[in-house]
Amino acid sequence: MAYPRALKNLMRELNRLPGVGRKGAERLALHLVRSGERDVRALAQALLKVTEEVLTCSVCQTLADRDPCAICADPQRDQHKLCVLESPADLAAMEAAGVYRGLYFVLAGPLAPMQGLGPDQLKLQGLVRRIKSGPVQEVIIATNPTTQGEATADLLVRELQGSGVRLTRLGYGMPVGGDLKYMDGLTLARSLEGRRKL
Amino acid sequence: MAYPRALKNLMRELNRLPGVGRKGAERLALHLVRSGERDVRALAQALLKVTEEVLTCSVCQTLADRDPCAICADPQRDQHKLCVLESPADLAAMEAAGVYRGLYFVLAGPLAPMQGLGPDQLKLQGLVRRIKSGPVQEVIIATNPTTQGEATADLLVRELQGSGVRLTRLGYGMPVGGDLKYMDGLTLARSLEGRRKL
Repeated sequence: MAYPRALKNLMRELNRLPGVGRKGAERLALHLVRSGERDVRALAQALLKVTEEVLTCSVCQTLADRDPCAICADPQRDQHKLCVLESPADLAAMEAAGVYRGLYFVLAGPLAPMQGLGPDQLKLQGLVRRIKSGPVQEVIIATNPTTQGEATADLLVRELQGSGVRLTRLGYGMPVGGDLKYMDGLTLARSLEGRRKL
Repeated sequence: MAYPRALKNLMRELNRLPGVGRKGAERLALHLVRSGERDVRALAQALLKVTEEVLTCSVCQTLADRDPCAICADPQRDQHKLCVLESPADLAAMEAAGVYRGLYFVLAGPLAPMQGLGPDQLKLQGLVRRIKSGPVQEVIIATNPTTQGEATADLLVRELQGSGVRLTRLGYGMPVGGDLKYMDGLTLARSLEGRRKL
């Protein structure tokens, strides 16, 4: 390839990102070179800042500026509710919705034994300890409605049963704005199961 | 959004890249945080290296490690042939094919007056000067077979006519491995025009 060494190296690094193929990496790298030194430096700086400033909250395990994170440190949040999620991205979506005022616990991911994420890697001890020691009365299991998320929810139920807290699971069914005729059968089945009396 | 400031900033920077939407930037940033400090630093370093090391060859205008670039400085290349391209990526594709041993001239892009790339911005003076002063005998116009590329080729023909060099254009037609029944009408028309005697 007739590219300068540094540019080829950048393409290689970009190519390692998920969803960025060889051609995509080439396009991004050339865009960056064209966009000028200031933009490239801004991106590099943003990357370095992340390695310096982002840490994991020791209480809820989400990504944070400080430890404990702003949510865990907020006395206004409902200390009795604990929402268990698969990832910081799920937490961000929940917070963006602005419908939940309790606390969180972020797992290392959903159970994925093939990717080396077995029950031991999910660090459930921290969750169990927290529930036993604190004022938590309800654990809302908010893993995703996928095979992995369901297996994770089952594991959580097994681990937390008998700990004296109320275990709940996010409701399943048609998303708001959804259209029955385009809904898959499993979602419809869950919608029926979760039907409510009017 | 419940993300640390540095992470939000990285998402914003990634979101500025072409083809990377808000959700895509979020996914990339979270992937980078998960992948660990070493990987993030490697990408940041690759970006900084590009701003430090990549320059523009003053002879052919491509991106290079040094000036003149390795191709322009290579006495083994055919000094009589000059291939005019739209971008360093096109040059890389040509070199990867390994079918051309002449020299290059890379335009600032195809003509795109709406994006501020008019005839003046293509820096054709450098090309004209080079052709007049050097041993170039043939200019191969290798702009892309698009509306913009065609307009650029027309401009090049107007500028270079009368300079005494032979002007040629890359051949048009079906790509090798192509399938007639999936080919668009324009390509077929050009294939017919460019038919060769057997």
